[in-house]
Amino acid sequence: MINASAAGVIQAAARHPDKINKVYAGQSGIIGALTEDLIDTSLERPEDIEALKYTPAGAFGSCRYKLKSVEEHRAQYERLIDVFRAHDIRYFFYNGGGDSQDTSYKVSQLSATMGYPITCVGVPKTIDNDLPFTDCSPGFGSVAKYVAVSILEASMDVESMSSTSTKVFVMEVMGRHAGWIAGASGMAVDERGLGPDIILFPEVKFDQAAFLKKVDQTIAEKDFCSIVVSEGVQYPDGKFLADSGTKDAFGHAQLGGVAPVVTNIVKQELGLKCHWAVCDYLQRAARHIGSKTDVEHAYALGEAAVEFAVAGENAIMPTIVRLQDSPYKWEIGKAELAKVANVEQPMPAEYLSDDGFGITAAARRYFAPLIDGESYPEYKNGLPAYVRLQKKRVAKKLPAFDL
Amino acid sequence: MINASAAGVIQAAARHPDKINKVYAGQSGIIGALTEDLIDTSLERPEDIEALKYTPAGAFGSCRYKLKSVEEHRAQYERLIDVFRAHDIRYFFYNGGGDSQDTSYKVSQLSATMGYPITCVGVPKTIDNDLPFTDCSPGFGSVAKYVAVSILEASMDVESMSSTSTKVFVMEVMGRHAGWIAGASGMAVDERGLGPDIILFPEVKFDQAAFLKKVDQTIAEKDFCSIVVSEGVQYPDGKFLADSGTKDAFGHAQLGGVAPVVTNIVKQELGLKCHWAVCDYLQRAARHIGSKTDVEHAYALGEAAVEFAVAGENAIMPTIVRLQDSPYKWEIGKAELAKVANVEQPMPAEYLSDDGFGITAAARRYFAPLIDGESYPEYKNGLPAYVRLQKKRVAKKLPAFDL
Repeated sequence: MINASAAGVIQAAARHPDKINKVYAGQSGIIGALTEDLIDTSLERPEDIEALKYTPAGAFGSCRYKLKSVEEHRAQYERLIDVFRAHDIRYFFYNGGGDSQDTSYKVSQLSATMGYPITCVGVPKTIDNDLPFTDCSPGFGSVAKYVAVSILEASMDVESMSSTSTKVFVMEVMGRHAGWIAGASGMAVDERGLGPDIILFPEVKFDQAAFLKKVDQTIAEKDFCSIVVSEGVQYPDGKFLADSGTKDAFGHAQLGGVAPVVTNIVKQELGLKCHWAVCDYLQRAARHIGSKTDVEHAYALGEAAVEFAVAGENAIMPTIVRLQDSPYKWEIGKAELAKVANVEQPMPAEYLSDDGFGITAAARRYFAPLIDGESYPEYKNGLPAYVRLQKKRVAKKLPAFDL
Repeated sequence: MINASAAGVIQAAARHPDKINKVYAGQSGIIGALTEDLIDTSLERPEDIEALKYTPAGAFGSCRYKLKSVEEHRAQYERLIDVFRAHDIRYFFYNGGGDSQDTSYKVSQLSATMGYPITCVGVPKTIDNDLPFTDCSPGFGSVAKYVAVSILEASMDVESMSSTSTKVFVMEVMGRHAGWIAGASGMAVDERGLGPDIILFPEVKFDQAAFLKKVDQTIAEKDFCSIVVSEGVQYPDGKFLADSGTKDAFGHAQLGGVAPVVTNIVKQELGLKCHWAVCDYLQRAARHIGSKTDVEHAYALGEAAVEFAVAGENAIMPTIVRLQDSPYKWEIGKAELAKVANVEQPMPAEYLSDDGFGITAAARRYFAPLIDGESYPEYKNGLPAYVRLQKKRVAKKLPAFDL
């Protein structure tokens, strides 16, 4: 969805030629800004910019790179200003989650701290859905839809063969700190009783005895059991299940993967035939099953960021404000970057069912509109015709800079 | 796709009321026939039968249960005939892969071996695509599409962040004996160079040095590497990588999962940041991204099975005959069950690239039409409105039977 927001920014900027002449995209985020690796989006075909709404991943690249404070790393800020000045950059939009909004905030303070006039607006995006002040963050709705659809389908599969084959299916989803994604999988549960019978949340310490009892009960009732487990599930002592000592043949610690750990517990304690899946990046890149609500949010937030900026607002982030659940209504709001940066929005406790293995009606009301509607990409020869931008670079004017 | 074939059988049978009064479905396949657990499909709503075309898993249940030979287990065959006679069952259609077609064949011989007049036609279905005589088997095209779409999307994700984060992504797919599914993932590779850079096939013994060299080269060229690995990949000594001694904290052998094994090899030998996914049942249940060709095949084969049967043909299986690759043309053919049963169709050697890490142009010509076209289910409240049949049972007329 980060690309849909980029389309919103680029298309909205074109409506303000008096203030914004061109939109340059930093290759790999702030790294592109620092290294003067800038892409001239005005050289892309308009239909390719439009197609960004339907394209997964980050068309301009992304990074895991956090600006330090001005005190710690003044040279980086001076470099940023050199780049901004060299290319007459007066507006800065930065798209991402908590760390990215920390960067947005620091850039938004450059007028005050360094005397360079720049207007910076953050654009929210994180599949983790843990940004504060916004009802939800772009990316999350589509991941939520993907995990709910996937566990529904896999549950139907296991149900149809449980009499003579697999009885337990375990699907691992992302969300190391909060159970938003795991919780959304619960939307698959409908009046038919399919979908995850058990969800293991990072918010609920893993109680092996209670878990096994629940599996046992579910098998007794339905003859199969469908489980969603968040990568962030922990033992009571705070240790991640995913780090619970799995070793390869050479004694090396095995990389992550909580699904096989949970599967092994079920297999060894209950002797049931199990299968497991790990979604990993498939869930967050699955643009082929994007949520329509999510795309609309992402695009609108990109547009709003530009409108706020040209209206002279600095150091803010547009947000999604929910007006009502059903029929779903929302509008754009705003939050101060100073308050957004480095604050994680946890999943509310009232979204967790009493036994800690499912979601409540309140959670369903929250998730429902976010997964609603299907936004399909176009296909060519059986595969999504995801756009590939030309990414023509802006001529460099400055000496190289080491990060 | 097994449900699409069922729709084909049920709807085609309705066109022959002179010969077929009702279609009963055995709950969980042959087990339902043996235990007299029969579903009266005439009591389902016609729109629900139609909706089977868009529904994953097996709406009537499935089983892993192979009939023994008449010599070994005569009582089972006598029971089958009792059930057939009690409900005036004269036609028997059985849908599945090699083991199921073995069952079809045995039932088709009941006239000869046991003197009960029954016409039996098999219906091919296996995501493994390893049934002989047919160009492809229903189920495979949709799995092929899913894995190609998924690795395309994940590759875009890794590409966009490789400069500061994950450089290697490993996706595990099904196919223990043949690389059809792994090979199909190669369809994601287009002129942009995205998609799997390396495919590990069960047909090619794992050469760790050659593999690591290829990863290294790919990283040098592109800065990221996308890998698809079949669950059936083996070391030169025939041992599965998935069984290569991974143990949990208690020293118990860990269940399957070749993706984490491959990932660990890359991480330890090359020191690269990796992520991995295991598709497992998600790939074969992913009706949300079904191949249109696949659905058309599945339905047509179900229809054809009935047409062959009412025309008096016994002991055959309708097949897909490819007439030309592009534009794709196909027709229905037939194969003798005696020759189909227990024969596995391997992937042709000419589909493997010289280095054993990719697919050839011939393979692309083969796979291309099978993943073509999108067959989407209807959605309700953001989730596929997969049909749930009523499955009203036919009144039992016989005493219970122990399998």
